[in-house]
Amino acid sequence: MIHLGFDIGGTNIKAGLVSCEGRLLMKNSRPFPKQDDSACVALMETMAAQLLKEADLSLSDVADIGVAVPGSIDPAGEVVLHAYNLGFHNVHLKAAVSRLYPDIPVTMANDANAAALAELYGGAFSGKKTALLLTLGTGVGAGLILGGKMFNGGRGNGVEIGHMTLDYRGAQCSCGSRGCLETLCSAAWLVQQGRREAQANPRGAIAGCVGGRMESISAKTVVDCARRGDAKAAAIFDQYVEYLSQGIASIANILDPEVIALGGGVSLAGDILYSPLRQKVKEKVFFKCEYQIVPAVWGNDAGIIGAAMLLGNSKK
Amino acid sequence: MIHLGFDIGGTNIKAGLVSCEGRLLMKNSRPFPKQDDSACVALMETMAAQLLKEADLSLSDVADIGVAVPGSIDPAGEVVLHAYNLGFHNVHLKAAVSRLYPDIPVTMANDANAAALAELYGGAFSGKKTALLLTLGTGVGAGLILGGKMFNGGRGNGVEIGHMTLDYRGAQCSCGSRGCLETLCSAAWLVQQGRREAQANPRGAIAGCVGGRMESISAKTVVDCARRGDAKAAAIFDQYVEYLSQGIASIANILDPEVIALGGGVSLAGDILYSPLRQKVKEKVFFKCEYQIVPAVWGNDAGIIGAAMLLGNSKK
Repeated sequence: MIHLGFDIGGTNIKAGLVSCEGRLLMKNSRPFPKQDDSACVALMETMAAQLLKEADLSLSDVADIGVAVPGSIDPAGEVVLHAYNLGFHNVHLKAAVSRLYPDIPVTMANDANAAALAELYGGAFSGKKTALLLTLGTGVGAGLILGGKMFNGGRGNGVEIGHMTLDYRGAQCSCGSRGCLETLCSAAWLVQQGRREAQANPRGAIAGCVGGRMESISAKTVVDCARRGDAKAAAIFDQYVEYLSQGIASIANILDPEVIALGGGVSLAGDILYSPLRQKVKEKVFFKCEYQIVPAVWGNDAGIIGAAMLLGNSKK
Repeated sequence: MIHLGFDIGGTNIKAGLVSCEGRLLMKNSRPFPKQDDSACVALMETMAAQLLKEADLSLSDVADIGVAVPGSIDPAGEVVLHAYNLGFHNVHLKAAVSRLYPDIPVTMANDANAAALAELYGGAFSGKKTALLLTLGTGVGAGLILGGKMFNGGRGNGVEIGHMTLDYRGAQCSCGSRGCLETLCSAAWLVQQGRREAQANPRGAIAGCVGGRMESISAKTVVDCARRGDAKAAAIFDQYVEYLSQGIASIANILDPEVIALGGGVSLAGDILYSPLRQKVKEKVFFKCEYQIVPAVWGNDAGIIGAAMLLGNSKK
């Protein structure tokens, strides 16, 4: 038997066949059809059929199906309440997929939760019971492993760690609160600060790096300039690490995770990120102890693997 | 069989016999002997013997012994690392108690964790899997129930929710960080603000309430004056509820607890606290949903009950 996982994103839908041990055996990817959710479900069926054919398997070999979605899901795990990148609002996605595969159990989860779950299977969380994944992208996504299982909130409302408060009097967040982790620790913050610096210093390293095209400044631009020794970029990145360490210390004071893994573009920054981050977190946590802070392993495959393992993990 | 629980505090040691269902059957209390930990352990033995005699039971009826301590405990649960109120530092308390009762298993926990556990047994957390207790006293203590069990941190370092960050640029906390939940949501904050107001307005309601004796101003003074309609006291209490709601919303965004219970003196404030608090938490959480926020049930008995149930709960 095999697990079938889908990771639905605003750019691409990805599908994959995953072994019982959580190993991704085969995958494919197609552009996300912007039209509507019926087109999305129809495409999922085509992609699954293709994978099964290539693997010389049939639907009777599929133990269960998991779907990861970049948005909020109702506590029962049936309805995509809001997935802004997909244009999905109150979409009964689980039922739609189940109609295609009436004999196979279908499970749905938020993609950041699924990504955390994936790390349990040969990734950064192998063998761990308590672990935290932070995805540092345009926003800050997060997934929690508690008791060796994916945690979806005590009432099934999900885990929105990006919206824990870090700076009570800070900048307005899209959620309505101020100074959420997401406002200070996302890649978007680095981009914003990088652009501000480039505008203030058109002959500086950051502006130079993108040939003056402000809109081309990414988080990577800032990281690259910092790594090359530009003082302005280094100051921005230091401040970012300072905020991130405060956020991680705050969560560590609550949950004391065995491992903290970082995903998303910023997580690829390497030692310029991890060395000071580990040191600062140690200084800030109540018990002044070291935490294992590492890059997430599964990257772009995390959503597929996590989706495929949803049902298996929930039964543990 | 019966469970024996001890709650060691800087003022009193409390002991109690607790049924298998978590019901406190009998208790006693003695002043905490300031001399040393040997005197403490000797007193515990005397107190236990008294209880057993009164209950017409013997040591062979005691299934296990639990000890709650107001301080940090090593991950193995054997050593009190620091309990400032007791003057205990690196005290091997578990071994000392076990020497008295070599045939009975002894378990030790932080008193806030134990208090959260107690609420599972006929208290605010009955039948719940995910729950949060915040004790609003001089500091902010906290205990978590996850998966229906007391959670002591993923690595056993404990739960220090009082030191999650709320105001990154805020007041210095005793832990070394700034703007921790504890700096804004403790009874001490209400006292500090109440004294400030009384000093600024010696003829105001708060100063009047204590006959001008600033040192007599307590959190209750502020709450009482607010309840009687004094605008200055009400403004202080409103700000307190604002901070507390932000802290609870921040935790709710991470854990989505089924119930949030409040303990400590401030938790007795009644509707002037709970009504606005529930409303503000709903407005601040990511999903804009209501949370059950209620007073803790077990009050001064929580430590004894929780301590007594430690081993039973850990085996669940």
